Amino acid sequence: MSSKSFDIPVRIYWEDTDAGGIVYHANYLKFMERGRSDMLRSVGFEQQSMKLSGLPIFVVANIDITYRRPAKLDDLLTVRTRLIGLKRASFVFEQTIYRGDELMTSAKVRCAAVDAAKGTPVVIPDLVFERLLPYLDSENTTK
Amino acid sequence: MSSKSFDIPVRIYWEDTDAGGIVYHANYLKFMERGRSDMLRSVGFEQQSMKLSGLPIFVVANIDITYRRPAKLDDLLTVRTRLIGLKRASFVFEQTIYRGDELMTSAKVRCAAVDAAKGTPVVIPDLVFERLLPYLDSENTTK
Amino acid sequence: MSSKSFDIPVRIYWEDTDAGGIVYHANYLKFMERGRSDMLRSVGFEQQSMKLSGLPIFVVANIDITYRRPAKLDDLLTVRTRLIGLKRASFVFEQTIYRGDELMTSAKVRCAAVDAAKGTPVVIPDLVFERLLPYLDSENTTK
Amino acid sequence: MSSKSFDIPVRIYWEDTDAGGIVYHANYLKFMERGRSDMLRSVGFEQQSMKLSGLPIFVVANIDITYRRPAKLDDLLTVRTRLIGLKRASFVFEQTIYRGDELMTSAKVRCAAVDAAKGTPVVIPDLVFERLLPYLDSENTTK
Repeated sequence: MSSKSFDIPVRIYWEDTDAGGIVYHANYLKFMERGRSDMLRSVGFEQQSMKLSGLPIFVVANIDITYRRPAKLDDLLTVRTRLIGLKRASFVFEQTIYRGDELMTSAKVRCAAVDAAKGTPVVIPDLVFERLLPYLDSENTTK
Repeated sequence: MSSKSFDIPVRIYWEDTDAGGIVYHANYLKFMERGRSDMLRSVGFEQQSMKLSGLPIFVVANIDITYRRPAKLDDLLTVRTRLIGLKRASFVFEQTIYRGDELMTSAKVRCAAVDAAKGTPVVIPDLVFERLLPYLDSENTTK
Repeated sequence: MSSKSFDIPVRIYWEDTDAGGIVYHANYLKFMERGRSDMLRSVGFEQQSMKLSGLPIFVVANIDITYRRPAKLDDLLTVRTRLIGLKRASFVFEQTIYRGDELMTSAKVRCAAVDAAKGTPVVIPDLVFERLLPYLDSENTTK
Repeated sequence: MSSKSFDIPVRIYWEDTDAGGIVYHANYLKFMERGRSDMLRSVGFEQQSMKLSGLPIFVVANIDITYRRPAKLDDLLTVRTRLIGLKRASFVFEQTIYRGDELMTSAKVRCAAVDAAKGTPVVIPDLVFERLLPYLDSENTTK
């Protein structure tokens, strides 16, 4: 773990599980989005305010996710988010989900900045870029 | 069943179930919303277009739902929607979900018309009111 | 607020919202279920373990929910859970959701104990009953 | 489009959208899972029955998904599923989602057969293998 990574806890409730007795695979994408949103929040950006003040929103362009071990009801997981790429109009995150020391799921997620009203790609504003730069951890890519 | 009721089929997939092996209780509200949306669509209103053309959107104000029998993976259900009340600014629906002849879930749902941009209550436009009126079935309330 | 009520925080993420720009109505049922599960956890019961050890699980039998104000992306809500009825085979909860002092949503929720394997109604085990009894707050029903 | 591909329609409801006014990214995984389940159903396998009769269930091992254009409320999409790999214990699908002729989303999805009770990898039973073989379309991989 790098000192630049950003962790949040995620508790598994009934809503997250399926009839296989495990977490439904699409729901890990929700947990990862919570991690990215909270990382952004931690540097002072709430997306509702960003949208209202004309700042871009960030949409997912690509996800490559691998499911390693299934999580279950009542599990307390950790979602770890690392920013491994930061370009003019997009981010790349590496996100991993752990139960204690066990790696459950890992993904590489590319997000693009788009105009909230028009949906067209835009450049990430300097303000957002500068606040995220300290999180950039391009040396430690493991996936 | 009244001739005025509106039926749609709903197939149960993994996404709808939980670790209890049955459909997660909140998901029946999704199935019922599909029924109301499709009833509105059947008289010519798509809600995306309504929003864009300044027509009100409809938000849920109250739901009283009773869970009778649990549905399971692969079940093919029928969602039956009946309009049992139609006022200047709100609708009341009676919705039931069946698996064949078995009643699985039933609910009374009150929806209010709100301005899509401001979120404030508004009167249902005449155009919408008139097209829904033929569906009104106030005689047959069973719940 | 009674001293017997049980509060949890809920942050609103993109996954919880819909194209109306507000929290999708069915998702409040998920937030309330988190509150009930965490109340049960607070007295020592995890539902995955209960299921595995042959204890009953609790299924929702009826919900009467009123939507008062819409919550939005990034909101930090409080889900308040009060146990207002405790019978041999069922519970009744009053659950309210606040944003600061604003009441957003309120519901009365009845849950029944069922055998996890068979799905049939069962009596709540003494152990569970006794640990929940201190939470019972039948004097303060406000809905 | 190959003659071996399997198409299902998917209507977009409020439940599928988010406050950005578009379909929430994780929900495309649900639509793709519906496509795979219905392909399996089309050759005679319902997963609830498979589970009960001791046959394996199929869990997602990896997804690589690219989001090209955002779908919106009321859109009627087509989910196209093609089986491009079939091994002793796993499948690979190529899945694409269209709105009319527009490609909205595409993914490669690898699924593994696991024992429903134990969660351990197992060989795909001959019966399932043989019925899926006619769908195998390894020549036409486009992604």
